[in-house]
Amino acid sequence: MKKFLLFFLAIPFYASAQVNADSIFIKKIADEILVNGKAYDLLHQLTKNIGGRLAGSPQFAKAVQWGKTSLQLMGADTVYLQECLVPHWVRGGKDKVEIVATGNRKTNIPLDALALGNSMGSGGKTITAQVIAVSNFAELEKRKDEIKGKIVYYNYAFNPTYITPSKAYGETGTYRRNGPSRAAKYGAVAVLIRSLTEATDNNPHTGAMAYNDSFPKIPAAALGSMDADKIWKLAQASNLTISLSTNGHFLPDTIGHNVIAELRGTEFPDEYITVGGHLDSWDVNEGAHDDGAGVVHTIEVMRALKALGYHPKHSIRFVLFANEENGLRGGEKYAAVAKAKNEKHIFALESDEGGFTPRGFGFTMNTTQLQKVQTWLPLLKPYGTADLSNGGGGADIGPLGTNLKTPLAGLAPDNQRYFDIHHARSDVFEAVNKRELLLGAVNMAGLIYLIDKYGL
Amino acid sequence: MKKFLLFFLAIPFYASAQVNADSIFIKKIADEILVNGKAYDLLHQLTKNIGGRLAGSPQFAKAVQWGKTSLQLMGADTVYLQECLVPHWVRGGKDKVEIVATGNRKTNIPLDALALGNSMGSGGKTITAQVIAVSNFAELEKRKDEIKGKIVYYNYAFNPTYITPSKAYGETGTYRRNGPSRAAKYGAVAVLIRSLTEATDNNPHTGAMAYNDSFPKIPAAALGSMDADKIWKLAQASNLTISLSTNGHFLPDTIGHNVIAELRGTEFPDEYITVGGHLDSWDVNEGAHDDGAGVVHTIEVMRALKALGYHPKHSIRFVLFANEENGLRGGEKYAAVAKAKNEKHIFALESDEGGFTPRGFGFTMNTTQLQKVQTWLPLLKPYGTADLSNGGGGADIGPLGTNLKTPLAGLAPDNQRYFDIHHARSDVFEAVNKRELLLGAVNMAGLIYLIDKYGL
Repeated sequence: MKKFLLFFLAIPFYASAQVNADSIFIKKIADEILVNGKAYDLLHQLTKNIGGRLAGSPQFAKAVQWGKTSLQLMGADTVYLQECLVPHWVRGGKDKVEIVATGNRKTNIPLDALALGNSMGSGGKTITAQVIAVSNFAELEKRKDEIKGKIVYYNYAFNPTYITPSKAYGETGTYRRNGPSRAAKYGAVAVLIRSLTEATDNNPHTGAMAYNDSFPKIPAAALGSMDADKIWKLAQASNLTISLSTNGHFLPDTIGHNVIAELRGTEFPDEYITVGGHLDSWDVNEGAHDDGAGVVHTIEVMRALKALGYHPKHSIRFVLFANEENGLRGGEKYAAVAKAKNEKHIFALESDEGGFTPRGFGFTMNTTQLQKVQTWLPLLKPYGTADLSNGGGGADIGPLGTNLKTPLAGLAPDNQRYFDIHHARSDVFEAVNKRELLLGAVNMAGLIYLIDKYGL
Repeated sequence: MKKFLLFFLAIPFYASAQVNADSIFIKKIADEILVNGKAYDLLHQLTKNIGGRLAGSPQFAKAVQWGKTSLQLMGADTVYLQECLVPHWVRGGKDKVEIVATGNRKTNIPLDALALGNSMGSGGKTITAQVIAVSNFAELEKRKDEIKGKIVYYNYAFNPTYITPSKAYGETGTYRRNGPSRAAKYGAVAVLIRSLTEATDNNPHTGAMAYNDSFPKIPAAALGSMDADKIWKLAQASNLTISLSTNGHFLPDTIGHNVIAELRGTEFPDEYITVGGHLDSWDVNEGAHDDGAGVVHTIEVMRALKALGYHPKHSIRFVLFANEENGLRGGEKYAAVAKAKNEKHIFALESDEGGFTPRGFGFTMNTTQLQKVQTWLPLLKPYGTADLSNGGGGADIGPLGTNLKTPLAGLAPDNQRYFDIHHARSDVFEAVNKRELLLGAVNMAGLIYLIDKYGL
């Protein structure tokens, strides 16, 4: 305690009576959430009663109604839906990938595969072709003359030496997003990728890809780690023939909604703080960590502030965004409306890195603002925040940063387990720990309280 | 990087060339463990091929042989067994607890219960008695005249507002350890406790208790959280009658072993650094986090140092301790032998808080030593260590601290999930994440390297 006070003696604008008041209020927030928190129960409802909820799906529409009702029940001043057009990709059936021959020997080895989101299926046919297995794009380019008529398999793996797995995800992501068109350019008939994970199980991980319109839109699917290892090994030993049928396609764009709740500001009602996560998820799982956690964090922060009778100075918006996974139309719409209305957005916070033990926040804001935020570290440290660092935000609030220059932040939980389940069938309620989830909300609510009280 | 170097300019004894060399070597340790680490595979062997391994059991003997072989395979200079007498408690059969009446209504509601370790069973009989449910010892004392012939149920729960669950565990532990004799003092015929957990499932958690020899040794068992809630609620509403039969008893003390591997010191071969975890576990689970993780951490630290060709200045002992769970005889033996041989032990590190993402270490040493260790924080921070704090160690190395004044440390992982599975059936291999486990070994090896190089 002595050390704690000494720290603050050096900070002129921040008197110790305030520190004590803030420390006491943040402790109240923590107690409220850890004792009465609804986030875990809400997550159970969202994951088990609704489940996978890709933009455009009936489940997403159900999730919108659930989100609206939940925010109302938890005491929002107002709740409304913000309409936006969303893409409507459907998987269209079961993805089938099979090894049908190794060398001259016929086989019948099914692989666990998931078509990539936004990918086009094989049009009711089964594609059968030899596999060209490459480590990376450089090898693809070297072997470009061999590719025509083949199925390209990218074996680009997570680098296990990166301590933060999101760095490995960032690096491998281009194979999922751009791999199909880069292979199609040289005449490939389909693409398989090693899933973007370091998981020890064999669950394949889907996720968004995008075609380059200059080349044929060939099918593309991800394999789980074990099947990826198998393919890679077999392809070294002999010719490998694989058959693939997938059924992905787009239906016409359809209506989606952001769900927006507000606590009205008492001093600056026309200045907005946004807290959010995305309501959509992939179709194959329950979207528990991605981003059910962010959704219930958002609702929980609001619930706790209301339960404590907190009347914010600024208006705080709690937003469940539509369509982060395969279009970002929800986040774009929210920023577009804010810009059209000439709203003043002073800060936005997103939780979209899972419901794991919080370790801090990453910020995208100017140095003066960041330095001010960093003086609050001792107030959040008791709840797990170890770092308030430069760099961070969230996909859905990104357009606020781009279009309105809003300072942004993202909750940064411990993410060692995140890519084990990210976009895979294993992202289910059972993978979320109640206390880890609640502690995320505690730290988010603490930060929002400080931003609201002191500005940036 | 700039910031990193600036930090060190202020530390006189620690030149920046050394910092660079240390930083580079610790990065090599991390890469070696994250790329070639065997800890996860070893844990799979220990948990799946051997499983539960309470002191005295055939499984523990098997684990000793496995530990010896594993340490030899991983390149120890020498491996030997250190014999010690261990208690030999056995569960003796299935624990049965059932609600047989609520008020005057007969019922037949089985409860999921586990007899507490070291507790005596009901002697082949079924005890049927009314329940006195109390919140805590204070209430027990108030109601002491009602207790004769009854089954006392303690409902003392984890305090969810403690950010570190081990604090809640510390507080509730006395109900498990001392609750039975405190109730027996007033004539209780058996004791039930709420499991020492905040888990949302219904797994009961066993763990050691100890009788006060002045009172009858009555049976004692733990209930899972959901059954605990049920009992508590029913007991408020009406009289509750429960039947219980357990079969725990002690066989004569038997031979156990610490497994000890050494890397011989090049400059100070007669000065010892100890790294360890405990090889025993409870009988009902695989002891994956408790303390399979500590065991494979210990082996992995040795493997990595050997693989990198590191020749320690001091002799480093890697110890798999016997009998932490219900006797501590392994740790006591190790310290007794060290003292009898007048060995110089400069430092001991234990991993016994699970295989979760490391957040730092806790130390029991003098201020000068701790301040020296804390200057190394920037070297370990890239791998997850956020705190090098005062207070910590481990049960097995405790006797070294007590008897030889050895400075101690304990790995402090994120422990939000630990008490969900601690001593419960759910402490299985699948509850351990590979990267989280390996990162623990990275930080431990880094700390051992620094201690060996610079002393304390």
